[in-house]
Amino acid sequence: MNEEPRTVWWEPGTVCLIDQRRLPHEQITVRCTDLEAVAYAIKAMQVRGAPAIGCTAAYGMALVAQQDARPGTSYQEALALLERLAHAKGVLDVQRPTAVNLAWATGRVLAVARSFVELLALPATEWPSSEEIARRVLEEAHAIFAEDLAMCYAIGEHGAPLIPPRGHVLTHCNAGGLATAGYGTALAPIRTAHSQGRAVHVYVDETRPFLQGARLTAWELLQAGIPQTLITDSMAGFMMRRGDVDCVIVGADRVVANGDVANKIGTYSLAVLARAHSLPFYVAAPSSTVDLSLAHGDLIPIEERPAAEVTHLGGQRIAPEGVAAAHPAFDITPHSLITAIITERGVIYPPFAEGLRRLQGTGHGAQPTER
Amino acid sequence: MNEEPRTVWWEPGTVCLIDQRRLPHEQITVRCTDLEAVAYAIKAMQVRGAPAIGCTAAYGMALVAQQDARPGTSYQEALALLERLAHAKGVLDVQRPTAVNLAWATGRVLAVARSFVELLALPATEWPSSEEIARRVLEEAHAIFAEDLAMCYAIGEHGAPLIPPRGHVLTHCNAGGLATAGYGTALAPIRTAHSQGRAVHVYVDETRPFLQGARLTAWELLQAGIPQTLITDSMAGFMMRRGDVDCVIVGADRVVANGDVANKIGTYSLAVLARAHSLPFYVAAPSSTVDLSLAHGDLIPIEERPAAEVTHLGGQRIAPEGVAAAHPAFDITPHSLITAIITERGVIYPPFAEGLRRLQGTGHGAQPTER
Repeated sequence: MNEEPRTVWWEPGTVCLIDQRRLPHEQITVRCTDLEAVAYAIKAMQVRGAPAIGCTAAYGMALVAQQDARPGTSYQEALALLERLAHAKGVLDVQRPTAVNLAWATGRVLAVARSFVELLALPATEWPSSEEIARRVLEEAHAIFAEDLAMCYAIGEHGAPLIPPRGHVLTHCNAGGLATAGYGTALAPIRTAHSQGRAVHVYVDETRPFLQGARLTAWELLQAGIPQTLITDSMAGFMMRRGDVDCVIVGADRVVANGDVANKIGTYSLAVLARAHSLPFYVAAPSSTVDLSLAHGDLIPIEERPAAEVTHLGGQRIAPEGVAAAHPAFDITPHSLITAIITERGVIYPPFAEGLRRLQGTGHGAQPTER
Repeated sequence: MNEEPRTVWWEPGTVCLIDQRRLPHEQITVRCTDLEAVAYAIKAMQVRGAPAIGCTAAYGMALVAQQDARPGTSYQEALALLERLAHAKGVLDVQRPTAVNLAWATGRVLAVARSFVELLALPATEWPSSEEIARRVLEEAHAIFAEDLAMCYAIGEHGAPLIPPRGHVLTHCNAGGLATAGYGTALAPIRTAHSQGRAVHVYVDETRPFLQGARLTAWELLQAGIPQTLITDSMAGFMMRRGDVDCVIVGADRVVANGDVANKIGTYSLAVLARAHSLPFYVAAPSSTVDLSLAHGDLIPIEERPAAEVTHLGGQRIAPEGVAAAHPAFDITPHSLITAIITERGVIYPPFAEGLRRLQGTGHGAQPTER
């Protein structure tokens, strides 16, 4: 990972991000020193990708915990800290409604703080200081980050054998290192196969309107030295029909109980096309993306983003004044179109409901703690 | 048509075009006074859309015919004129390989000139002058234009009844007035239904990489006062699954003997998606687009355009330096995915082979004269 830019990282009192809106043209670090800056970074997609958003939100919580933290703590101060964190979770969770990792990560951090405040039942001399709570909150954020990185490598291990011998993989959006703590989800099997010396060639959907494929995935693959061909989203069917594609691998913003998947708009079309061409369609997702509280995909809230992101590109207007545009940021791929879900603990095949339940049952803190 | 800008028109010694690369931001007229300028306008997509390209090429031939035209003509001069036109046809035909109207229109004009040169077998006193030949060539170009316009209106009449009552039509690229002499092919049934006071709402695929949908179709529909929603190409499947779309209507760059259709890249994906959602998928095409000389679609040459049109947008680089990109400009939709083909002489249903043969058999000069 050394040679690659980091997606999100902590510096004392600061959540640092690479501004993904400016990539690949400029590598600019955004330094967030308060909750508002972190919330904005998530909302405005300076950081994006479900796991990366989760890491960012966790560090945002750590930032809030450090405000006014000090060695000694009164009962009131500890309660105020907990309240501040609960408020911060409220602010952060609403920034992007579709990715489940966001609420999952803030919930995990909040639970750590809560467990400390519960210690206030102890004699006053054993009370944790707000400084101590803030330290433990930061540790939890670091743990979320480290686990995410480990999950990505594990997804690579489990997913690489699924890539067919010729290794022509089509992917959508960016489910790479920039969407995670590093290494990626959908790109992980590709990276692992490449590092094993296997033939891999990636067809990169440019992924309008935000161009995560053209700007981010293409850039990551270039840096990793993995061969690729950039295509517009409209070319995927043509490439499949011509026999250029061996399989599709995408990431996920949320996987629900029956195996339905929310992911970047356009994913569903790819799944329909893959089925029509009898190609395997894989979803790579860490267990932090799984949300067993929803029975099926149509219950997942779909974020409607500003129409200007469709009518404009890079600040430049491309459609005439006065045109209405729709901008659903995600779509739902029904489980019936998914060949398998690649997780950090192994590959889940249909019926997904059972496999996902087992996955969560064996979890080590990766289960959604609240919704 | 009065309120709408013209696509291509003739002024003395000049082929005039609206520069479609600059729309909708600027309405700039390109004035071509030689063959090179006409060839460039076609190649660089200042004018695009199979029927509009045909009209432009026909006027380009008229331009060439007028060079050195004078009242009296020697046998050598008439032969030289014919040779000049044959050469011009060669230059023009290779500019865009997929649309059949280009070679069809230049062939039709050349045939007129040839029929005049054949008159050279007559006594010298009855020889046509090069001026006379040039005049008849221009008349043929005007006829091609007028017939195209009439075909578009007829497609509107035949196609409007196919639009379901709620009238939610998805279209791709621009098969509107700007792609034809006026009124359009795919947009013709929509315009006609709208002018009949019926409910119509158009979902406009933006159509990367050239954005003909966002730039041209959205602009035409705005001017015609027809309600629309602009979407990225990747959203079509989502809209269909949500029940927002009632049918798909697209144009065609070439329709071959078995009913397979070449059209703008992304059309095939839409056809697969329409079938998966049990939606009618219509192709609107004048008979000038039909090419019975090819048995099936995989014989149609697919133009590969510059990768820079994918990696850049409006002169602005969107993908990192060094990324390879593919740019097939068209794809093939197999006839099995097409519900019906809307022509100026009626609606053709499967089996298309028979209907297309009948269509050409009743032609009034609309049959491809050479390939």
